[in-house]
Amino acid sequence: MKKIKFGIAGLGRLGKVHAQNIASKIENAELTAACSIVANELDFARDKLGVKNVYSDYKEMLSKADIDAVAIITTSSEHCWQIAAALDAGKHVFSDKPLGTTIDECRLAEEAVLRHPDLIFFLGFMRRFDPSYTYAMDQIKAGKIGKPYMVKATGIDPEALVQSAIKFSPTSGGIFIDMAIHDIDLMRWFLGSDPIEVYAGGSTFKHPEFKKSNDDETGIAMYKCANGSMGFIHVGRTASYGYHVETEVIGTEGTLRISPVPEKNLCFIYDQYGVRQECVGSFPERFAEAYLLEMENFVNCIQKNKKPDVNVYDGTKSTQIAFATAESYKKNSLISIKY
Amino acid sequence: MKKIKFGIAGLGRLGKVHAQNIASKIENAELTAACSIVANELDFARDKLGVKNVYSDYKEMLSKADIDAVAIITTSSEHCWQIAAALDAGKHVFSDKPLGTTIDECRLAEEAVLRHPDLIFFLGFMRRFDPSYTYAMDQIKAGKIGKPYMVKATGIDPEALVQSAIKFSPTSGGIFIDMAIHDIDLMRWFLGSDPIEVYAGGSTFKHPEFKKSNDDETGIAMYKCANGSMGFIHVGRTASYGYHVETEVIGTEGTLRISPVPEKNLCFIYDQYGVRQECVGSFPERFAEAYLLEMENFVNCIQKNKKPDVNVYDGTKSTQIAFATAESYKKNSLISIKY
Amino acid sequence: MKKIKFGIAGLGRLGKVHAQNIASKIENAELTAACSIVANELDFARDKLGVKNVYSDYKEMLSKADIDAVAIITTSSEHCWQIAAALDAGKHVFSDKPLGTTIDECRLAEEAVLRHPDLIFFLGFMRRFDPSYTYAMDQIKAGKIGKPYMVKATGIDPEALVQSAIKFSPTSGGIFIDMAIHDIDLMRWFLGSDPIEVYAGGSTFKHPEFKKSNDDETGIAMYKCANGSMGFIHVGRTASYGYHVETEVIGTEGTLRISPVPEKNLCFIYDQYGVRQECVGSFPERFAEAYLLEMENFVNCIQKNKKPDVNVYDGTKSTQIAFATAESYKKNSLISIKY
Amino acid sequence: MKKIKFGIAGLGRLGKVHAQNIASKIENAELTAACSIVANELDFARDKLGVKNVYSDYKEMLSKADIDAVAIITTSSEHCWQIAAALDAGKHVFSDKPLGTTIDECRLAEEAVLRHPDLIFFLGFMRRFDPSYTYAMDQIKAGKIGKPYMVKATGIDPEALVQSAIKFSPTSGGIFIDMAIHDIDLMRWFLGSDPIEVYAGGSTFKHPEFKKSNDDETGIAMYKCANGSMGFIHVGRTASYGYHVETEVIGTEGTLRISPVPEKNLCFIYDQYGVRQECVGSFPERFAEAYLLEMENFVNCIQKNKKPDVNVYDGTKSTQIAFATAESYKKNSLISIKY
Repeated sequence: MKKIKFGIAGLGRLGKVHAQNIASKIENAELTAACSIVANELDFARDKLGVKNVYSDYKEMLSKADIDAVAIITTSSEHCWQIAAALDAGKHVFSDKPLGTTIDECRLAEEAVLRHPDLIFFLGFMRRFDPSYTYAMDQIKAGKIGKPYMVKATGIDPEALVQSAIKFSPTSGGIFIDMAIHDIDLMRWFLGSDPIEVYAGGSTFKHPEFKKSNDDETGIAMYKCANGSMGFIHVGRTASYGYHVETEVIGTEGTLRISPVPEKNLCFIYDQYGVRQECVGSFPERFAEAYLLEMENFVNCIQKNKKPDVNVYDGTKSTQIAFATAESYKKNSLISIKY
Repeated sequence: MKKIKFGIAGLGRLGKVHAQNIASKIENAELTAACSIVANELDFARDKLGVKNVYSDYKEMLSKADIDAVAIITTSSEHCWQIAAALDAGKHVFSDKPLGTTIDECRLAEEAVLRHPDLIFFLGFMRRFDPSYTYAMDQIKAGKIGKPYMVKATGIDPEALVQSAIKFSPTSGGIFIDMAIHDIDLMRWFLGSDPIEVYAGGSTFKHPEFKKSNDDETGIAMYKCANGSMGFIHVGRTASYGYHVETEVIGTEGTLRISPVPEKNLCFIYDQYGVRQECVGSFPERFAEAYLLEMENFVNCIQKNKKPDVNVYDGTKSTQIAFATAESYKKNSLISIKY
Repeated sequence: MKKIKFGIAGLGRLGKVHAQNIASKIENAELTAACSIVANELDFARDKLGVKNVYSDYKEMLSKADIDAVAIITTSSEHCWQIAAALDAGKHVFSDKPLGTTIDECRLAEEAVLRHPDLIFFLGFMRRFDPSYTYAMDQIKAGKIGKPYMVKATGIDPEALVQSAIKFSPTSGGIFIDMAIHDIDLMRWFLGSDPIEVYAGGSTFKHPEFKKSNDDETGIAMYKCANGSMGFIHVGRTASYGYHVETEVIGTEGTLRISPVPEKNLCFIYDQYGVRQECVGSFPERFAEAYLLEMENFVNCIQKNKKPDVNVYDGTKSTQIAFATAESYKKNSLISIKY
Repeated sequence: MKKIKFGIAGLGRLGKVHAQNIASKIENAELTAACSIVANELDFARDKLGVKNVYSDYKEMLSKADIDAVAIITTSSEHCWQIAAALDAGKHVFSDKPLGTTIDECRLAEEAVLRHPDLIFFLGFMRRFDPSYTYAMDQIKAGKIGKPYMVKATGIDPEALVQSAIKFSPTSGGIFIDMAIHDIDLMRWFLGSDPIEVYAGGSTFKHPEFKKSNDDETGIAMYKCANGSMGFIHVGRTASYGYHVETEVIGTEGTLRISPVPEKNLCFIYDQYGVRQECVGSFPERFAEAYLLEMENFVNCIQKNKKPDVNVYDGTKSTQIAFATAESYKKNSLISIKY
């Protein structure tokens, strides 16, 4: 198989993970170009990963670098125009979630994808590639839990990182835009239906700073879906024990619960605190394997000219739902979701 | 200590449990009278428990039997007048939940309790006496999880008993009146605040019979409370694995999760199905110890002239909340709860 | 059913548990007499349990008290002659384990049981009545794990109680005589075969005081049984997390593992220590229900004239095996066990 | 960093895993040569991994290929001479466990390592690199469980693969030589001491074929170590639920238990079988990450000229202990282990 040549845009915390994966952990991929507006991110690409062609201008990378594909791990508000530009330059595109930060942005991306039916567009909802989530979906497809009719999802960032959340709260769009997008995607994926109504709320009992930016440290939302199924999402930022992502899918014949204990590993400690497991501390730790597997899947889609399971419209819809949730939260009212 | 002499009213499924506990498992209690409109329930009391004085008329038992206390385990709609009658007859009263099936009924009970400040009135929210729930509350009172600000509760009856649920659905008041009252009580207890707003929904994917009586096999409700805390309740009737009651209390410093696996016992089976635990099959199995402990607590309150932790107003409020939840469910709208 | 009248001998820590159970928790049982050489144990019986007839002399209780059955919860070395005396006085006998502290003592008890085939003799291996253990045996009898061929057992007392273990070490017979008897009984019960060879060892890394009395804080023993099955027992006295009894039964088709986490209750705590359960702190806490159930079973055997599952020879054999284990430990050699 | 050029010898089941890891998953490694006596293994290297230089003769690879290091994943009896030949040819060596199949073979390897102090010799006890085991050792080094004084280890192959075990039983050296070597290594690693005495046994209740080759389907062994600590190892071949590797390390202040449930992933299934997790099916599945991490560690040792944690003497000792265990098993006697 011919190796896919990648250019990466954005080498922040998650960008570095993807860059290293592409550079040395993915069969049939190589990292040949990198782009960032942050100088030391380019140093990282050059010095640690041996990337020769580095750019501070995204369009320059598109026009000059010898690349087949672009991985976009930039600030969310840049995603959509960068997706369109890369597709228009004939490159396959992997974009980190969310698709965009406004519906208008998302439409731009949709149109670009439509213009280039022969190029692969891949949206990085990596949780779908985590082996436990993939396994859950396989069980569902095999009919093991009957018809799935409810999803209960939890996503809580660690208290250890709360100062960063407080700092970015004023510009993050609030807890639902910032955090619930993965849970929304999973809910749609598992239920096979779109929510048409949402009611949301939030609370802050620990860090009043969130209230100052009209945000909250914890948010919850309840959804009713088009096919009669239902969802409940709980997002937060103050887990004392680590990074907690848990999802429950309830079906007519059984229930799947993924990661009720966000265990760091398989070791149980028996000591003065009882019997316990320590927990993962962050999303890169929890989803290390998923980040690798989604990129392998992207490469595989390119090589076999196969459409990914997630499409650009999934990206728009999850953004729409997050906005409707935020609206319900701000207005304290029931919101209908229209697509 | 002087033994407390009990008369019991109602010896159905749960009534029998209480009758046997009072008769032979509670120190300082004895069962001296029984009342039922069902003949073979009186036979049970006479023949199995050796109760000599049995009555088919409740008021007759109150006036004639040599009893200090009455345990009311009758149909919900009979509770309130029976409470009032017993108190007016000078008896201490233990009543099964719910307090009543209408707010008007509850007010009658409230007034009777007010009239008799020297008598003990005990409302049987037995989950509070389950050792795991008691332990959770002790942890909370000791400040171990900081300020509790969210409760997520699950209560699912077993699929094995669903035909009974279908049969009684038309007269049960619907899934929220019928099933959520315990979860509502726990939510109020753990959060120390009353819900002021509710949004509820339901679905039926397995047994369309529920739809025929404008009911559902699964119901969910989201609550916002007076102090800013929040709740989510999920009730259902189709658990393939058994009887599932689970409660999560989330606080600023930690989370308590009670019974995520409704384990039958401490035995793990390693076999062709993986590693597994079998589950409890019913509420009498799950809460056997709680039924005993709450009655011991009632006896103890009488002997020490101590007020129980749950009072009559808790009973009214949980009923009010259940009705508001049912209203939200039926109207598909946000409902404010006023007390 | 006629109530069985009990006299109890010995009201120490465990004796009090049994006395209270007989007095107020067992249907068809009543505690009418008590005997102890410790004055305040008799005060307890008289004042707390309302036992009118108390004795400082065991034989006097046998001859004078109006009792059908005796519960013997005295020092181990007194068990056998007290068993014989009670049977010879025409009383049914419940004796705490171990049967005796020497084989000669055990033979006396065996002969007394033989002399009185119409009386019930019940040996208190209460673990067999713990619902998890009973369930495990039911699974085995139902063929769920095929042919059981190995038992791995763990029994560790809590560090919190180690000073008492150190104090009694010189007279306790050592760790195997003192602690392994329950595990030996379970091994025989689950495997359906007797060990014919044992190799044992021990170690002390925390409390050198044990070494002074030629004892150890931890002991292990490996067994080969007559039918080719095998066992491994680990006993200790220094669990920092509580009281740990765990048993694994391995069969040709599956494995049962009872209580790998000696959980205090069903509550999981998510906090700065990870996700954890607190543990039971002592044998009365862990086996509270088993103590009740075994006594109910004894009463039931008397009422229905049914032989208990454990017989006097089981008592002798477990003592023989414990002695052989201690011999292997002391001599550091392989010991054949002959019955 | 300069990339390390690898030649691999042996591309069977595990060899393929290592070959793929070296070829495309390890930073700073490349697979430039491959050697096998099996033609289609060389086809795999050439066609799937793009290895240009393939050899059917090991010595030819050593003399002709442009390689810095050799990975030896051949039949156990070939390891030692291949190790010596590679070191004498100036190559760094990674060898799969066990070091050798006789002590004499091991001595050859020891001498070769001694002759080449500047070359890295790495023995593939990959379990030490599994994140859960690494974490456990980190906890121990940090003093979290005090002084470790007992290891209980379980290693059971799945019933699904038993026919292969039966087939190779006559030539495998028996269950202890074949299976216990990893557990022996872990026991030595965690306890920091060598066993000086062993008693072993075995049984077969399911597949009598093992008995025909004087082997057993299950083996157990108890060890006493030089520093007074102790070990117990249970190996088997008939787990109905999957591949089960579990290790418990007991210390004076706490216990670590690694993988009591050999969970396939983080998904819990609630269905008619109870609440369950499915299990891993094989060693490549369970230890996929460990195989990668040990090879990364080897590359890192080469690049930084750092000695690996496991040395050649560890290899000899684990082989000696396995032989002593097998001797005890065959003779049914206590065996002293001398080094």
